Amino acid sequence: MATLKDALLTEVAEVLPTSGNKVTVVGVGQVGMACAFSILAQGVSNEVCLVDCMQDKLTGEMLDLQHGSNFMKNPKITSGTDYALTAGSRLCIVTAGARQREGETRLDLVQRNTDILKSIIPKLIEYSPDTILLMVSNPVDIMTYVAWKLSGLPKNRIIGSGTNLDSSRFRFLMSQRLGVAPTSCHGWIIGEHGDSSVPVWSGVNVAGVRLREINPAIGTDEDPEKWDELHKEVVNSAYEVIRLKGYTSWAIGLSTAALTSAILRNSNNVHAVSTSVIGEHGIDKDVFLSLPCVLNSNGVTHIVKQLLTPTEIDQLHKSADLMHEVQCGLRF
Amino acid sequence: MATLKDALLTEVAEVLPTSGNKVTVVGVGQVGMACAFSILAQGVSNEVCLVDCMQDKLTGEMLDLQHGSNFMKNPKITSGTDYALTAGSRLCIVTAGARQREGETRLDLVQRNTDILKSIIPKLIEYSPDTILLMVSNPVDIMTYVAWKLSGLPKNRIIGSGTNLDSSRFRFLMSQRLGVAPTSCHGWIIGEHGDSSVPVWSGVNVAGVRLREINPAIGTDEDPEKWDELHKEVVNSAYEVIRLKGYTSWAIGLSTAALTSAILRNSNNVHAVSTSVIGEHGIDKDVFLSLPCVLNSNGVTHIVKQLLTPTEIDQLHKSADLMHEVQCGLRF
Amino acid sequence: MATLKDALLTEVAEVLPTSGNKVTVVGVGQVGMACAFSILAQGVSNEVCLVDCMQDKLTGEMLDLQHGSNFMKNPKITSGTDYALTAGSRLCIVTAGARQREGETRLDLVQRNTDILKSIIPKLIEYSPDTILLMVSNPVDIMTYVAWKLSGLPKNRIIGSGTNLDSSRFRFLMSQRLGVAPTSCHGWIIGEHGDSSVPVWSGVNVAGVRLREINPAIGTDEDPEKWDELHKEVVNSAYEVIRLKGYTSWAIGLSTAALTSAILRNSNNVHAVSTSVIGEHGIDKDVFLSLPCVLNSNGVTHIVKQLLTPTEIDQLHKSADLMHEVQCGLRF
Amino acid sequence: MATLKDALLTEVAEVLPTSGNKVTVVGVGQVGMACAFSILAQGVSNEVCLVDCMQDKLTGEMLDLQHGSNFMKNPKITSGTDYALTAGSRLCIVTAGARQREGETRLDLVQRNTDILKSIIPKLIEYSPDTILLMVSNPVDIMTYVAWKLSGLPKNRIIGSGTNLDSSRFRFLMSQRLGVAPTSCHGWIIGEHGDSSVPVWSGVNVAGVRLREINPAIGTDEDPEKWDELHKEVVNSAYEVIRLKGYTSWAIGLSTAALTSAILRNSNNVHAVSTSVIGEHGIDKDVFLSLPCVLNSNGVTHIVKQLLTPTEIDQLHKSADLMHEVQCGLRF
Repeated sequence: MATLKDALLTEVAEVLPTSGNKVTVVGVGQVGMACAFSILAQGVSNEVCLVDCMQDKLTGEMLDLQHGSNFMKNPKITSGTDYALTAGSRLCIVTAGARQREGETRLDLVQRNTDILKSIIPKLIEYSPDTILLMVSNPVDIMTYVAWKLSGLPKNRIIGSGTNLDSSRFRFLMSQRLGVAPTSCHGWIIGEHGDSSVPVWSGVNVAGVRLREINPAIGTDEDPEKWDELHKEVVNSAYEVIRLKGYTSWAIGLSTAALTSAILRNSNNVHAVSTSVIGEHGIDKDVFLSLPCVLNSNGVTHIVKQLLTPTEIDQLHKSADLMHEVQCGLRF
Repeated sequence: MATLKDALLTEVAEVLPTSGNKVTVVGVGQVGMACAFSILAQGVSNEVCLVDCMQDKLTGEMLDLQHGSNFMKNPKITSGTDYALTAGSRLCIVTAGARQREGETRLDLVQRNTDILKSIIPKLIEYSPDTILLMVSNPVDIMTYVAWKLSGLPKNRIIGSGTNLDSSRFRFLMSQRLGVAPTSCHGWIIGEHGDSSVPVWSGVNVAGVRLREINPAIGTDEDPEKWDELHKEVVNSAYEVIRLKGYTSWAIGLSTAALTSAILRNSNNVHAVSTSVIGEHGIDKDVFLSLPCVLNSNGVTHIVKQLLTPTEIDQLHKSADLMHEVQCGLRF
Repeated sequence: MATLKDALLTEVAEVLPTSGNKVTVVGVGQVGMACAFSILAQGVSNEVCLVDCMQDKLTGEMLDLQHGSNFMKNPKITSGTDYALTAGSRLCIVTAGARQREGETRLDLVQRNTDILKSIIPKLIEYSPDTILLMVSNPVDIMTYVAWKLSGLPKNRIIGSGTNLDSSRFRFLMSQRLGVAPTSCHGWIIGEHGDSSVPVWSGVNVAGVRLREINPAIGTDEDPEKWDELHKEVVNSAYEVIRLKGYTSWAIGLSTAALTSAILRNSNNVHAVSTSVIGEHGIDKDVFLSLPCVLNSNGVTHIVKQLLTPTEIDQLHKSADLMHEVQCGLRF
Repeated sequence: MATLKDALLTEVAEVLPTSGNKVTVVGVGQVGMACAFSILAQGVSNEVCLVDCMQDKLTGEMLDLQHGSNFMKNPKITSGTDYALTAGSRLCIVTAGARQREGETRLDLVQRNTDILKSIIPKLIEYSPDTILLMVSNPVDIMTYVAWKLSGLPKNRIIGSGTNLDSSRFRFLMSQRLGVAPTSCHGWIIGEHGDSSVPVWSGVNVAGVRLREINPAIGTDEDPEKWDELHKEVVNSAYEVIRLKGYTSWAIGLSTAALTSAILRNSNNVHAVSTSVIGEHGIDKDVFLSLPCVLNSNGVTHIVKQLLTPTEIDQLHKSADLMHEVQCGLRF
């Protein structure tokens, strides 16, 4: 007997399995879901695949997104524990990872997360050999290096979300002080995502007016207006938000959606993301740190060579050395 | 001494406190935050005020949203426990409310949530006498009635999110069966949000083709294709998602953002929302239930008079009677 | 000597020539440009290639779009008279074509436009063998047939913009009468785009309520409210707008952008578009007419089988016969 | 007898005439319509009123926009020759104006356009006393002054579209040279819109890296890479586009929509717009020129004090003197 579907529709051709803009999100915790939701709600991609090892949580999140399809652009949302589902992804966003346990050393945590990535990265590459990898798991700079090692991908196709979020936080704080929109406040935080990030004060400007030319002491201890507090507040932001609400989610989700948009739309936008920095600013270690990069459908195609002060370069080198040391202790 | 701000900017006039499109969200749990985030990320409003009684959580959520400002349209996001902050809202969305305790009767829960609303609604109206109220707290139909009583507002300006979400879930399930986009699948779930909701099978159609004309048994026990399972799945959806992930958030957030868009943009879209139904379909009780309504900047200005079957009308009456009974037991 | 660009940027990898979502628009008259602009301004695609034979006009339109890049999502916009530029398009939209001359027969016009398509379609297919073709040139139904013949593509990948616009006009007029948003007014105009289009009154509804159930005479001469005037106004719309402003542009541009969105996003939306209708509704001629179709990345994958009245079917057959007759007279 | 509408809908309350975000566009030539279409298609406002003196053209453009409503957010679009229709506008965009006739002096043209504004501005203010005025008519800087005089509005509520477009063109050309997205290329063109505009080379940067620090000769005749050609090309752009396609439309439409968004959303974005500059950079004439301004719902609330070179300041003063001279010859 003909089904209602057969009676309603004449089939002319088969439906293709993908739009060509598929994005996989690995990890459906608060961060992974904020990434997936931002990408869907802002119409950045219309096809999202969720992967995790918790079947129930996966299904629950998938259903909750699907139930809102009617208010988005009819997206295709899939989920599962089997990486075969991720096949043909243009971009894979990895948010999976363990949190630091009490008493655990940083290196122990990194090793633990490396072991987790060993079960993720090769499978992603197996099913999507042409994908770009966007790492969000922390500590993001080392995890980006680890993913590069595990993936065998060329460096341009491995990106860490890095200080794109730190830079956004900085611009928001700048906007609060000046009464100017965050997108009209320009400032770049580079280096290691987190505690040892580096604010590039020379580039901080509104409409091309460098704040340093108005206040030469900006960013130093001598500054009577204490602008350096903005950077301290940026460094403290994740801790503060975690203390207050238990985790961070919205801002990292939106930050990731912005990177995804630049990649899928081949837009050549400049974002501060974690990339292979050997050879940049005199760094001679094979590590990943954030610098302003041109992002497009081939990943990171260019790095902007900022004119840094000796102090800033020194800070980058220290971060690079620290990364390198940790990396040397890792077992792959 | 001149501050950097003074040296950078000549003040010409003062900044106005509001864009005129302010939306207040009361309650910053998973539902409230999904509403706020959907409204901001989709650009529905650029001004959101969060209110709750948990100061830390409030601040954490506000900061997390603000840190992503750079990736939105430079929104203004405020938060606090003091309702003075909500002044001048065009729309107030209320998601606050307690969950059912074990052993608690439905009436007890409703009384508890009524008591919570007593501390919220009058203050919202005090600071925004011209606001529209959009109730999301459950059980939403009774809470919408309670809010109406507490607010003194004309009925058109009190709306419950109602079965807008149930209808969206129905359309998604329909789309899965037919391979047609959810926004091209038309179907309406009316009545009480939740267990006793009513699917209006006569209106279910694709491109104006009523599925009932193809399958006259649709929605009944005699249907060999068991389309009624779709409605059962809709009823079960909230329970299922809560079982799987612990709560529902994304779909209700997007549903609320769609209603907000219709209200702020004065768009006259038809949505199934909880409204005063006395006089509709022979209902003679002063209760709120979902029917398809024309939504715009004056709230609900029209109700669509669907042509219901005696069974459907009977189901509505039963829900109305049940609501009324519960309402009679409430202490204001 | 190092250029500024070399000094500013370290090259890591090459930029890819395409985002994978390239759309070519052939013809940069008012219609073609409204299509291109709608697609770019609404962010439907970030990569548009303009082709025409008028070099100056092409360059002028391209520059004018490029000068607004900063207010869009950094799109890539190219133009030229050489079809090599169109290589790798996912979708080619053809708006080129001559207008009817005074004293010219309809068949003469069709032959003239066929000759124009002979110089366009084979080149588009040569450079983008996997493309979907979306025909906008008038008379659109016959031009879609001609493009199919010239292209050698499977039928699902040839689409005419057809009565998607007529249906949109109908919904707007309905919205004016009822005070309900156009997107909440449902009605389908099918058949031939233009004078002999067919309004399917049985499907006209708001929230699933068929207007015919309220007013059984709707669409007939006996209707005291004369709803059939809406269809007459739809038929007259193009003439009226051309009389008043000289051409039509905005609505056909937006209509085309909506079809483009469904195709690029693989969304399975139902739109009334011109498709091969042989075998549908008893039509036995190989012609293209508009019916509600499921649109996605494979073009038209399904046709909705509406339940038409004998009169409606008869109107379709008459259009099909007329098309067929014209087609038989064409020299390829 | 009950109409179908009465039978379909129960009226609960009246529909409000406005969403509160009404935008009036005066002049429906190519520029005015590109402004109106950009605002509607990008969802910047959902309510646009078109005014002109050509009734037929007005109706044709309004109908053409309305026929696309279904593909936008159900906007309200009105039109007419009577300014009563504009009542309650938050923003009025004036694109009306004559073009220079052969043999006509600049002053004659300005006087002619002043006479046109005399019939427009007072009526706009009469019906929308709280509106902001955004002038697009050329020569825009003088026309903005004239509109200020005719309106009696405080200076912050009179804005000329000015060099926002010139700056956008500059960033696009920069992006072409560097392979970086236009929105990541920062540069400001200030002063008079058109031939005597001033590029502020000191502020031109990518990721905070001033191009002048890499190439100290940038913008001068000594520069071997001849970056000054970018500014020459900007100055020449309007002429070139007009020569090639007959007029400019898309870029000015998008530029105006961006300004409209900043105003309606109260976003505090910085844009280069024409504003009263007396007192800025030593200017002592009461003229309007473009400087980077903070834009929001109160219009221009702040002007950014760029650190200009003596040559740049001198250029501004020359423009100011020229404007002043022309203004002194005007009869109001």
